[in-house]
Amino acid sequence: MSFEGPLDQLIRRLARLPGFGSRSARRAVLHLMKNRDSLMMPLADEMMRVGQTVRSCAECGNFDTESTCRICTSASRDASRICVVEDVADLWAMERAGVFSGRYHVLGGVMSAIDGVNPEMLRVSYLVQKASSDEVREVILATSATVDGQTTAHYIAEKLETAGVNVTRLAHGVPVGGELDYLDDGTLAQAMKARRALDG
Amino acid sequence: MSFEGPLDQLIRRLARLPGFGSRSARRAVLHLMKNRDSLMMPLADEMMRVGQTVRSCAECGNFDTESTCRICTSASRDASRICVVEDVADLWAMERAGVFSGRYHVLGGVMSAIDGVNPEMLRVSYLVQKASSDEVREVILATSATVDGQTTAHYIAEKLETAGVNVTRLAHGVPVGGELDYLDDGTLAQAMKARRALDG
Repeated sequence: MSFEGPLDQLIRRLARLPGFGSRSARRAVLHLMKNRDSLMMPLADEMMRVGQTVRSCAECGNFDTESTCRICTSASRDASRICVVEDVADLWAMERAGVFSGRYHVLGGVMSAIDGVNPEMLRVSYLVQKASSDEVREVILATSATVDGQTTAHYIAEKLETAGVNVTRLAHGVPVGGELDYLDDGTLAQAMKARRALDG
Repeated sequence: MSFEGPLDQLIRRLARLPGFGSRSARRAVLHLMKNRDSLMMPLADEMMRVGQTVRSCAECGNFDTESTCRICTSASRDASRICVVEDVADLWAMERAGVFSGRYHVLGGVMSAIDGVNPEMLRVSYLVQKASSDEVREVILATSATVDGQTTAHYIAEKLETAGVNVTRLAHGVPVGGELDYLDDGTLAQAMKARRALDG
């Protein structure tokens, strides 16, 4: 046993990250040890700081160092639109694409009988309350195109009926760069059903 | 921009680990944020502690919290044999396999004109000095079966000629579980050349 103690502990802990196993965790730790000052110590520092300062936004569920995030407090964002996403990762994906300038509601999951996730956990009633304000005119449901994601979207759409807002969802269809040959029947069916006139 | 500041910094830093890219680093950070108390803070703590306490063994180059590692100080290890490995990872691999009970010399690399690694960096003269002591009877060269690894092994073997020790190297051949069909010609040639009588 050559690596008992703190090194061994660190490897075991690192192996719990998604995409890591014990072999890649060992490699990562050796890499860290070789770059102690340029990588390991700063990484530990930053991890500590993030753990201490970053919290969930009370409004939308995004992560930020403020209790209300930059997107929710920004005056340049369109407050009349709320995009409902499952996870902070999805919010980040939307922001990277730069296709949405409104605000968000992060569910933090999808309804699932198996995992015991119910609507209260997803703060759906808070979403309905926000959507009922005069300011909000559209709620865009951007949950995943999975069974649980679509179930959740339908449930939310139903709850929003009384809120007096437009409820929309992302379009299904052929992904850009996708080849028809590799697409599933469901996607093709949706793409055919939602076909549109060539514009110009 | 939703994740400026510490979160963004942490993702960029984590993406520098081997096997990680920016996408998997994002996933890992989200996972860390969701398991802040059970994973993120302990991980940062342990990383900090390892960075502060773990050092290279002055004798063999292994990592340990002591300035001379457990293997070098252990009375139960066979001090008459030294196994020369390229890297701490290789030392760990040998220890996991549990096939060697002697001591080690970690080169910390292989000789390479391209990378500008010369014998002094690998502490070869210190190895020769250790091997020259009466106690040591065998030096096992366990460098990788690559061109640089074998060049290094030959160089070390030459230097050890005056030390009065047996110099051996790991056997080449068919890996256990390996299929001949997938093996390269060099390995097959070595395996054929070094064939042995069936024992029992």
